[in-house]
Amino acid sequence: MRDKGNNNKNINKGNLKFTAAVCQLKVTDNKTHNLNGAQKMIEEAALRNADIIILPEMFNCPYDSTYFKRFSEDYPGETTGLLSMLAALHSVYIVGGSIPECDKDRNRIYNTSYSFDRKGALIGRHRKIHLFDVDVEGGISFNESETITAGSDMTVIETEFCKIGIAICYDMRFPELIRKMVLSGAQIIAVPAAFNMTTGPAHWRLLARTRALDNQVYFIAASPARDKTASYVAYGHSLVANPWGDVISEASEKEEIIISEIDLGFVNKIRKEFPLLKHRREDVYKTK
Amino acid sequence: MRDKGNNNKNINKGNLKFTAAVCQLKVTDNKTHNLNGAQKMIEEAALRNADIIILPEMFNCPYDSTYFKRFSEDYPGETTGLLSMLAALHSVYIVGGSIPECDKDRNRIYNTSYSFDRKGALIGRHRKIHLFDVDVEGGISFNESETITAGSDMTVIETEFCKIGIAICYDMRFPELIRKMVLSGAQIIAVPAAFNMTTGPAHWRLLARTRALDNQVYFIAASPARDKTASYVAYGHSLVANPWGDVISEASEKEEIIISEIDLGFVNKIRKEFPLLKHRREDVYKTK
Repeated sequence: MRDKGNNNKNINKGNLKFTAAVCQLKVTDNKTHNLNGAQKMIEEAALRNADIIILPEMFNCPYDSTYFKRFSEDYPGETTGLLSMLAALHSVYIVGGSIPECDKDRNRIYNTSYSFDRKGALIGRHRKIHLFDVDVEGGISFNESETITAGSDMTVIETEFCKIGIAICYDMRFPELIRKMVLSGAQIIAVPAAFNMTTGPAHWRLLARTRALDNQVYFIAASPARDKTASYVAYGHSLVANPWGDVISEASEKEEIIISEIDLGFVNKIRKEFPLLKHRREDVYKTK
Repeated sequence: MRDKGNNNKNINKGNLKFTAAVCQLKVTDNKTHNLNGAQKMIEEAALRNADIIILPEMFNCPYDSTYFKRFSEDYPGETTGLLSMLAALHSVYIVGGSIPECDKDRNRIYNTSYSFDRKGALIGRHRKIHLFDVDVEGGISFNESETITAGSDMTVIETEFCKIGIAICYDMRFPELIRKMVLSGAQIIAVPAAFNMTTGPAHWRLLARTRALDNQVYFIAASPARDKTASYVAYGHSLVANPWGDVISEASEKEEIIISEIDLGFVNKIRKEFPLLKHRREDVYKTK
């Protein structure tokens, strides 16, 4: 158990309270412009005392199949280099949204989230596991697997505060994945995402709140700002839900930064008073 | 696939549309009064063309540890006999809420839901698996396991329409159980429940909607009416959520019946357009 009395913001293990920021930036079809925009928002979030900064899905590239290959990068690359530099410069953790990642031969593209610690070291690489292949009558239609290759590994990163599970957008539709991260020790789930104008109004808050509630974690969901001129219009409304399922901060649809205090003491309190995770009946759930 | 054109309400396999009713009755400390009340509401629901009638948790007994033993019955007993008779008389399915069930020796008490088909035959017995042992600061405190023994089996009943998963109240907090029922073929989840004035406003709609959405099922949650004089005050607000996560009918806190059209064609449509269940990555979720 961590020391409940320690509320300082110093950099050391054992802090229960710290600050998370979500940068809800507007993504354009100009990569340099996107990276400059991300840099400015990260700098502002750091000035506002963020310990952990989360960017949205495909923050350097339009969420549009025709752009993924052209904007893709191998690791290390221009975008990850910038994020690493900014993490070290400002001494912050960065969950670097996602970008199109290509392999050396540029044969495969992944939708990939890279995370960096306060020294700029890479501490996580999550390749989106569940690809968004849907066709809703009168609503959204998208076929992500046409251009993107799926990952196959859960990603839980270690920070000085706690473990953080990383999922990308459609991944958050799958309660099994989130639960597995939590059983692996995650107390925060951070999700770079880009819900749209069909699924956003219908499901965004609902899913974020329930994943937080069911798993007694903070659930941080980062969206790009809404751009009505884009082929895929993101919903915006980046938000943070707490372990009781309440939304504690939420953006509008515009470009903005939201700042939230994360309190792992509240995670501990909820898990003690309402011991859902302890009440699980693995004996019943397992397939016989 | 079922015949999409068949919208008749005849009693035969293959119907995609049918009517569900939830009887949100007020539970008192008089068992005879509770059974009379249930009978009247079942009769009214049948008159309103219900095919399936769902009652709330502990509909014949106050949700109060001091009553469970005294009100408990072995099977068959007074309450189950009445439900069986009414199911046959009105030719309806009844998901009989739950009642305190005792074993022959009256040593153990379970929180048990009995279901009956249109001929009054018993088609399911679900003993609540997850017991409600919580102690929320400034809110609800209850220790169900003090008096109730937990069940250990998932319950999915067969009807002429589809399979229906049965869970009781706190069971619905556990996404694993609901998912397992759905992977076993359930297209409806019926949940006799009794959320309270702490968890009801905070979580009732949220959980019902997300379970429906994640699993692409109709989720039917039945509560007793609110009685502010009871030791445990039920929230009410019985509701039905559809596979897109929308609430399609909801009661107030008072004694009332809600009627919903269930359309398995809509389940099929959502599962085709937005194939969440097909997109599951069992290879990733399994523990290595």
